Amino acid sequence: MTPGEALPPPEEARIVATYLLRGDLSDVRVRARDLCVEQTVEVSESLCADPFIAGSVVASIEGIEPAGGDSWAVRIGFPTAVATDEIPQLVSMLFGNISLKSGLRLESVDFPEAYARRFRGPALGVDGLRCRLGVSGRPLLASALKPVGRSPRELAAYAEAMARGGIDLVKDDHGITNQSFAPFDERVRRCADAVASANAATGGHTVYLPCVNAPAEQVIERCHVAAACGCGGVLVSPFVVGLDVMRRIAVETDLVVMSHPALAGAFLPRADHGIAAGVLFGTLMRLAGADLVVFPSWGGRFPVTRDDCASVDRRLKAPLGGMASAFPVPAGGMTLERVAALRGLFGDDVAFLIGSALYERSPDLVANVRHFRALVDAAESPEKGETPGTKP
Amino acid sequence: MTPGEALPPPEEARIVATYLLRGDLSDVRVRARDLCVEQTVEVSESLCADPFIAGSVVASIEGIEPAGGDSWAVRIGFPTAVATDEIPQLVSMLFGNISLKSGLRLESVDFPEAYARRFRGPALGVDGLRCRLGVSGRPLLASALKPVGRSPRELAAYAEAMARGGIDLVKDDHGITNQSFAPFDERVRRCADAVASANAATGGHTVYLPCVNAPAEQVIERCHVAAACGCGGVLVSPFVVGLDVMRRIAVETDLVVMSHPALAGAFLPRADHGIAAGVLFGTLMRLAGADLVVFPSWGGRFPVTRDDCASVDRRLKAPLGGMASAFPVPAGGMTLERVAALRGLFGDDVAFLIGSALYERSPDLVANVRHFRALVDAAESPEKGETPGTKP
Repeated sequence: MTPGEALPPPEEARIVATYLLRGDLSDVRVRARDLCVEQTVEVSESLCADPFIAGSVVASIEGIEPAGGDSWAVRIGFPTAVATDEIPQLVSMLFGNISLKSGLRLESVDFPEAYARRFRGPALGVDGLRCRLGVSGRPLLASALKPVGRSPRELAAYAEAMARGGIDLVKDDHGITNQSFAPFDERVRRCADAVASANAATGGHTVYLPCVNAPAEQVIERCHVAAACGCGGVLVSPFVVGLDVMRRIAVETDLVVMSHPALAGAFLPRADHGIAAGVLFGTLMRLAGADLVVFPSWGGRFPVTRDDCASVDRRLKAPLGGMASAFPVPAGGMTLERVAALRGLFGDDVAFLIGSALYERSPDLVANVRHFRALVDAAESPEKGETPGTKP
Repeated sequence: MTPGEALPPPEEARIVATYLLRGDLSDVRVRARDLCVEQTVEVSESLCADPFIAGSVVASIEGIEPAGGDSWAVRIGFPTAVATDEIPQLVSMLFGNISLKSGLRLESVDFPEAYARRFRGPALGVDGLRCRLGVSGRPLLASALKPVGRSPRELAAYAEAMARGGIDLVKDDHGITNQSFAPFDERVRRCADAVASANAATGGHTVYLPCVNAPAEQVIERCHVAAACGCGGVLVSPFVVGLDVMRRIAVETDLVVMSHPALAGAFLPRADHGIAAGVLFGTLMRLAGADLVVFPSWGGRFPVTRDDCASVDRRLKAPLGGMASAFPVPAGGMTLERVAALRGLFGDDVAFLIGSALYERSPDLVANVRHFRALVDAAESPEKGETPGTKP
């Protein structure tokens, strides 16, 4: 090196993804190397010899540690230059082609600080949403307009009653999209008006979030319709419309973004293959801009464990670049009786989503929501610093 | 009924989806009913009593037949009015929430003729693409620009050599998106120019398909850049950017659309749960407008069976509304030696995608493509009517 000669730019620290693999260590080493190649250069080893490609493009095995039984935690280092700061390519690099293989479980992803800072994440997050709703010191209360088949007038009546009862968030069921018996524009206008009217009467700040799962060219348009109708937010299923489409909503609108897990379950690990709940509903949803993340809770009608839920909670709230935290929304057949147990895990920064059970309690939705609120207030909040879900 | 009184509109025939479930018949019946409710109204049974909702909204069990061992083929009828003609809602209805459950394998989907006619499917399809490429009576030849890490000049040189050798389709590797060492605009311009120059020299019609996996607001923009550069097509991973985003590309541009299976593997059945390859790569890709569908072939580096491939082939080519057929593109570690076996299954309407193996044969890519072409011409085409993949 002669004085004054430009040094090559220092290589940025790598994104470290941890995968669980089972089997003999020697076999695991081979499959780990195969993963490194498949997820970056996708060529035979003989075509990886170029020094730049071998050194700065192909992913690297950063470590292999025992993980109980015949499992190994394999840490793979991905160059940020290969990942880019585009979410589709990042996710494709982490699990794209290997989704087609077997026995690879993506357990966690750790981003270098400088890289994480390139993503905005939730536009509002926990603090911003609390500010918008005027709610502090307690969990949020959420419910759903349902079922598909109800008319816009009926749905609007439910929305109004819930808002009068003091619900914080009322969303469409994700299956209510643009059916002929409840077309998007009419439904959203009626429900938004109903919530506005209740808010005016009570002085409350209930936010209505219509479902914007829609044809690709209409998702953003429907968000704008929702905003124009006075909706404060939207519900979207990122695996139905595209993960990055959710980020676009967060960037291009001023709406509260709630993510819904339809289709996401395909990614959950089965037969030791898939993306762990913490990465799927924690890391990826937060990165892609969800303020509130609906995911199946343990103890409901989906096969999810309490540990899974704690992992999602951690990843939505732990420091990550400069990103805001997001609210976990454990759901899926939740009953009013489970509020206390859920508060025990998630602490105060959680939104409880009670659907069918709220309608079933009595025909008086206003009273049902008040009862829901009373249960939440009565549920003991864990001591500060002892919230299991926020431990590292 | 008094004379002159309007009859309610006759209900359209239902979409019939067949799921495989294992277990005792009585248990299967319960889970089938649960699926009907979960995938439409998503409420407790007590809230389904309304006659309109019970009769015209909730899905119905159309039949349960033994399917070998303790498996049952459960046919579920979904009202088209709930599905709408929006692909995101259709797919969400077929597998959205139940993706989070266990033991449900979506095996096939049959659409009423009138409903299928609401979807355009591939804009070009087999006949249109053959016309554009000037190729009849033989399979198409495809390869990939790789690996990520090569400069735009290097990739363009590969593209030019392949075009000179007579390749029909040359696509980017799906991991080549917008990296700093090969930014989209420069790479696409150089590669498109290189292919155009080769075409001018040979009189050929090679089409270059850059990868448009991109942030949500840039996918269509990159397609327009590709078209402006003279690219004839694009490669897109629908499960990375959004399934319906692919349909939008097919509708809004004049580009050949090739789908790539990154992330799609998460949906393949594992532990008796998921979406069968035939539905995933056959039905859904065709519905969403792919002219060419890349999917893992049996005998390559992914765990896929020959029967899976035959099922994909059938669903890409069987009559479906007025939709054009699409080309299967079996891929994933294909070697030149396997061309004959693949032609035996897929017949002439197939595109062979050979990646690494084409680069490895010799440093002379022009000669390698000519060799590839000679192998394809030498591979015997199955007798008409005997193509296994096109039998009903």
